[in-house]
Amino acid sequence: MTHANAPSPSVGPARAGGPPSPPRSTLVVTAHAGDFVWRAGGAVALAACRGEKVTIACLTFGERGESAQAWRAGKTLKEIKAIRREEAERAADALGAEVRFYDAGDYPLLPTAELTDQLVAVYRETQPDVVLTHPAEDPYNGDHPAANRMAMEARVLAQAVGYPGPGEIIGAPPVFYFEPHQPEMSGFRPEVLLDITEVWDIKRKAMECLAAQQHLWAYYTDLAVRRGVQLKRNAGPNLGLAYDTMAEAFMRPFPQIAKELA
Amino acid sequence: MTHANAPSPSVGPARAGGPPSPPRSTLVVTAHAGDFVWRAGGAVALAACRGEKVTIACLTFGERGESAQAWRAGKTLKEIKAIRREEAERAADALGAEVRFYDAGDYPLLPTAELTDQLVAVYRETQPDVVLTHPAEDPYNGDHPAANRMAMEARVLAQAVGYPGPGEIIGAPPVFYFEPHQPEMSGFRPEVLLDITEVWDIKRKAMECLAAQQHLWAYYTDLAVRRGVQLKRNAGPNLGLAYDTMAEAFMRPFPQIAKELA
Amino acid sequence: MTHANAPSPSVGPARAGGPPSPPRSTLVVTAHAGDFVWRAGGAVALAACRGEKVTIACLTFGERGESAQAWRAGKTLKEIKAIRREEAERAADALGAEVRFYDAGDYPLLPTAELTDQLVAVYRETQPDVVLTHPAEDPYNGDHPAANRMAMEARVLAQAVGYPGPGEIIGAPPVFYFEPHQPEMSGFRPEVLLDITEVWDIKRKAMECLAAQQHLWAYYTDLAVRRGVQLKRNAGPNLGLAYDTMAEAFMRPFPQIAKELA
Amino acid sequence: MTHANAPSPSVGPARAGGPPSPPRSTLVVTAHAGDFVWRAGGAVALAACRGEKVTIACLTFGERGESAQAWRAGKTLKEIKAIRREEAERAADALGAEVRFYDAGDYPLLPTAELTDQLVAVYRETQPDVVLTHPAEDPYNGDHPAANRMAMEARVLAQAVGYPGPGEIIGAPPVFYFEPHQPEMSGFRPEVLLDITEVWDIKRKAMECLAAQQHLWAYYTDLAVRRGVQLKRNAGPNLGLAYDTMAEAFMRPFPQIAKELA
Amino acid sequence: MTHANAPSPSVGPARAGGPPSPPRSTLVVTAHAGDFVWRAGGAVALAACRGEKVTIACLTFGERGESAQAWRAGKTLKEIKAIRREEAERAADALGAEVRFYDAGDYPLLPTAELTDQLVAVYRETQPDVVLTHPAEDPYNGDHPAANRMAMEARVLAQAVGYPGPGEIIGAPPVFYFEPHQPEMSGFRPEVLLDITEVWDIKRKAMECLAAQQHLWAYYTDLAVRRGVQLKRNAGPNLGLAYDTMAEAFMRPFPQIAKELA
Amino acid sequence: MTHANAPSPSVGPARAGGPPSPPRSTLVVTAHAGDFVWRAGGAVALAACRGEKVTIACLTFGERGESAQAWRAGKTLKEIKAIRREEAERAADALGAEVRFYDAGDYPLLPTAELTDQLVAVYRETQPDVVLTHPAEDPYNGDHPAANRMAMEARVLAQAVGYPGPGEIIGAPPVFYFEPHQPEMSGFRPEVLLDITEVWDIKRKAMECLAAQQHLWAYYTDLAVRRGVQLKRNAGPNLGLAYDTMAEAFMRPFPQIAKELA
Repeated sequence: MTHANAPSPSVGPARAGGPPSPPRSTLVVTAHAGDFVWRAGGAVALAACRGEKVTIACLTFGERGESAQAWRAGKTLKEIKAIRREEAERAADALGAEVRFYDAGDYPLLPTAELTDQLVAVYRETQPDVVLTHPAEDPYNGDHPAANRMAMEARVLAQAVGYPGPGEIIGAPPVFYFEPHQPEMSGFRPEVLLDITEVWDIKRKAMECLAAQQHLWAYYTDLAVRRGVQLKRNAGPNLGLAYDTMAEAFMRPFPQIAKELA
Repeated sequence: MTHANAPSPSVGPARAGGPPSPPRSTLVVTAHAGDFVWRAGGAVALAACRGEKVTIACLTFGERGESAQAWRAGKTLKEIKAIRREEAERAADALGAEVRFYDAGDYPLLPTAELTDQLVAVYRETQPDVVLTHPAEDPYNGDHPAANRMAMEARVLAQAVGYPGPGEIIGAPPVFYFEPHQPEMSGFRPEVLLDITEVWDIKRKAMECLAAQQHLWAYYTDLAVRRGVQLKRNAGPNLGLAYDTMAEAFMRPFPQIAKELA
Repeated sequence: MTHANAPSPSVGPARAGGPPSPPRSTLVVTAHAGDFVWRAGGAVALAACRGEKVTIACLTFGERGESAQAWRAGKTLKEIKAIRREEAERAADALGAEVRFYDAGDYPLLPTAELTDQLVAVYRETQPDVVLTHPAEDPYNGDHPAANRMAMEARVLAQAVGYPGPGEIIGAPPVFYFEPHQPEMSGFRPEVLLDITEVWDIKRKAMECLAAQQHLWAYYTDLAVRRGVQLKRNAGPNLGLAYDTMAEAFMRPFPQIAKELA
Repeated sequence: MTHANAPSPSVGPARAGGPPSPPRSTLVVTAHAGDFVWRAGGAVALAACRGEKVTIACLTFGERGESAQAWRAGKTLKEIKAIRREEAERAADALGAEVRFYDAGDYPLLPTAELTDQLVAVYRETQPDVVLTHPAEDPYNGDHPAANRMAMEARVLAQAVGYPGPGEIIGAPPVFYFEPHQPEMSGFRPEVLLDITEVWDIKRKAMECLAAQQHLWAYYTDLAVRRGVQLKRNAGPNLGLAYDTMAEAFMRPFPQIAKELA
Repeated sequence: MTHANAPSPSVGPARAGGPPSPPRSTLVVTAHAGDFVWRAGGAVALAACRGEKVTIACLTFGERGESAQAWRAGKTLKEIKAIRREEAERAADALGAEVRFYDAGDYPLLPTAELTDQLVAVYRETQPDVVLTHPAEDPYNGDHPAANRMAMEARVLAQAVGYPGPGEIIGAPPVFYFEPHQPEMSGFRPEVLLDITEVWDIKRKAMECLAAQQHLWAYYTDLAVRRGVQLKRNAGPNLGLAYDTMAEAFMRPFPQIAKELA
Repeated sequence: MTHANAPSPSVGPARAGGPPSPPRSTLVVTAHAGDFVWRAGGAVALAACRGEKVTIACLTFGERGESAQAWRAGKTLKEIKAIRREEAERAADALGAEVRFYDAGDYPLLPTAELTDQLVAVYRETQPDVVLTHPAEDPYNGDHPAANRMAMEARVLAQAVGYPGPGEIIGAPPVFYFEPHQPEMSGFRPEVLLDITEVWDIKRKAMECLAAQQHLWAYYTDLAVRRGVQLKRNAGPNLGLAYDTMAEAFMRPFPQIAKELA
């Protein structure tokens, strides 16, 4: 896979003058098959383009709650799952990421100790430097908070040497919540505005893999423009000009660890 | 002025079977000349198209803080005020509203007892059934909260028979805060989604009166689409379809008074 | 049933000039048998008096947590359930509503997928235009938040064509939270003040059906007076007068959808 | 003055076995003449009945904003101030407190450095052990937050040895905010429920000194009943009984300092 | 057990002139074996020194989540539980309290109806005048909110005469949340600052019973100093002096019931 | 000035491969002379050690509110200002920063248009890449919020080409609020934890320049330890070990602008 408009991938960013570390790792935990594309496709593409590993844990296919058109077209549950899986795999491939499905059943996605335990295993296997997931509130879709709860709980359990299971314990990677569909109603405040301009074409291609939701292509393009305008307004004076920056917004549930204020 | 795409204006909505009341009155209090167009143009046009009276109190021309292009083009302060006034008057005319300027000086707009007293007089003169103004917070522009404070204080003072000045005291009209540029950073939550589809063409024409801020035409069109999608999602099932509803979002600082839950 | 002091019932409000629609439908989801009377009796009576259908889903009889006097009088669990059922049926009848019991067990009411699924069926059967339920927080009674969670989750599931079960999917009806016993401790803010003056006598009669809780009759009469005073103060000037308006307070967890600001 | 229904006043409560301390001192800072009666009359009476000193600093007479009936009866500003002063003095006397007027002008009450400085002098003179004032928010009456700001600022200034003026510096007395007219809209949460049953008759008599606001007598009696019910529910089990406890609610802007958890 | 540095224990504080009541009872509900020492050791020691009964319900030993050193030293699960139990018992003994273990399994501690029911029994047996537990939020350790939920739910259930089980129903004892490790990230605000100076030596000895966590001895000593400084600053003027007061901070989820403002 | 324990200063960090930019600039706006040392000394030292320019705008000397010992020792106002100035200059020198005094008068520090205008000039002169100031709330010291308001307003005004005055307009530099004395009571949440371990010795030396407040040396050393522990816990697993990281905490009122999530 090559990305014509993307920055050159780097191999294993050397840190602080030592030998090359293993490539950084990003773990994305989502409720439904399409979530990672609309909400974090730019962040995923940026990481992948830097040569980093990105693993997406899709807890369900969104087969009941986010496949209205397919149901109305008369598809069976099995067919819908297959369609959603195939679309998501193509989108993940476009972004340069690996996607794994847990088929836990959506609408409602029920948090269980077993599924949380599977996530602990993924954390320990992928040793993420960064975690992306849904925010804790979403009055329009209870599956998103359910995914959040399991992602957050598994991250804590995976840090404990006393929690059984394969793999090494993890550190405490920073977590970023991606933007819900109705941010103000979900207590979402953009705490990080990520510049995704250079990977925008990649995100757009990934969105276009989700054929059944064509009406969202324009919607999420507009959102990236809006967040780009806000990024510019938070970084420079108001010159009364149009901008062409594209951005994604995130929240941080934990403090940022910094070596420098910037 | 005629509005090809607008609903027929009604004259003085008769209420509850009695004799025709005087036409309803809306008062909009804004900090800068363009604010009422971008943020409340749809609400203004809807009211005007119903035959209601809309009065816009512009506390400043936005001559210092929102006229970057004119300053960079070498205009004088006087010229800039004249340009902003002329644009705003044309936009108000397109919407079917009256605009009044107070030239109180922006960046910063300083709340004073005198300016608040002038607003009390406008309240008593226009006897508003509805008030629109900026929300109480905006970390990007202190003039907006300053306008809010004076609009809110004057509304309370105008209700008191003991507060001196011409005109009759007013009731306690409902207040709607319109959407700031960065809603999540300003504590803005869409509590009312107003369907402005039928007056969208009028709002767009009014926006186009603000020639110097052409880059905002598309921006606020996108916003109306986004708020329209949210309106639909708060009113009907998720059918996986595109919508063509346009909307504006508002907050209510006071409880809604209702005869029926709906 | 006739209501001497009530407005004339209308049959199927015609909307926007078209043919008469089916009567509007209200669904009330509550934890205990008496909740709908104290907290929403006025709203229920208003809807019923307009000729609308009101269905009350009582998840439990409040047999353990809200029947202290009966327990202390030595009644058995079975007797207490029967008493509570009979009282609630009489109160519902007085208000003009239908009540259904789910006998899910209170103190604690445990949210389950099965009970939620039963609520999905009620949503699809009754096709509510309006939903009333408990607010999301109540530190004094965990059954209320439990009922809220199931009512809110079932409302989302019932909208999804992919969620199995009988009946048509529903739209996204507005939700109103009614007032808890200690509003400030439960994060309750009166966002809607509903004028129930014209049905007050009906609500009072319904309250008097709950014989075992006679001490609450005066308490909830006083509350209606207080909310009535606040309604007046949010609608008109402070003239230093007494009012005789009676009101109920509600919260809106979702934005109001409006055709007009008022 | 004798209080038939009140506890015996004590002289200078001896603390921790030492010699009698000077009587405790309470300072109440209010915007308008009647505020201390409706909102804190019970707390004032309780302190006075314990033999403590209570000083009420009334910043204005409430002559413009809270005297609608007098204005409509054609009284002059001077007459209205005289009426309010006389009523408040009688009410203070009934409660056993001293009231002082600053005649700073209401509607709006404007915070000034001079008025704040006068309050610093009162703090240093009265050396309060307890401070009562309005809460920081009140969207219905801007004079209340204005009084709050000055009361709070003066309390900090009065602690500083470097702030000039007569009298000794004060400690950091606890502050209690009393309940506004619309508590939920003013961010008010009852953090302290004070049992005023034993001085209720005194408070009622003080309320009855405010003849022009007779409609508020019942209103604030009902409020005391409601807060009394909540006090009982926060102190004992729900026995399904009526209570006859009367209470007032307060907020604490600063942490409670405790020798024992209770 | 004698405490050289503690106040003399009193036997059954006589209240309001009547016969001696039974000694007051404090119930502490915690997730892990060490929690009561670090977070509430001072409050426990103060109560014990006053001759009151203190019962600590430890839901788990903290065997998986808070025993990293033991796991890395190669201990077995059984050995770790035994070590934690022994340490906690010695610490409870030092404080003058009784500790009971429920061995419900930590990391994650899962709320169940059975465990909640066991807590109801403890409430009814111990008839607490005061309850201490974890706050409702803690993003760093999900076991703490889980313990909070069960402690809070059991407290409500234990008040209901209709909830089955042995023992008498309880009143509504005040609850105090103790301070989490990262207070600002857990929504913790110090609402009560408890002066523990006179029992500091006892708390320190109890901390030293937790040998494996020696690095926390200094940490929690520093915290007590910091809270002591804040206590002083909330009780007196800023004299620019050092203090030697030691304190613990607590939140109150319910209103304080007061006979006097202080 | 040389810093034995500090990293080598770099000269003008080259960015994005271009020619060396001018050294980065940090602007600190504080109310009183000592604030920048206790609250941001580590951030200042880190920037200075990287060869960056740091300018501290001290609005007052803290002569009335934070000089209790000097007043009690009988010093005059003039003497106290001179002492505070001299101490602050030595501390700034130790940190490698420039300090400027505005002598605006403390306790209370009153926001004025003139002082705000002076700050606009400093912004335009120093062209800050980073701004540090007090948070917006502090119930213990009104001067801190006053400084915040002016610092924030001046930052917006300085961005506007229409605001008159010398110098070039600025961009929109990120702002960091430093930690108040009682963080939880001031709405402070650590959103950024800055590792200051490598400049700790420098901060300690700067603190020791403030001779009159010796009791704060230990206090702020303990705070740095505590924030360091939290930094470690937000960056790695809980290994049950002691740490020797020192940190300062900050809030971000505006979103972080990022090229990468980390």
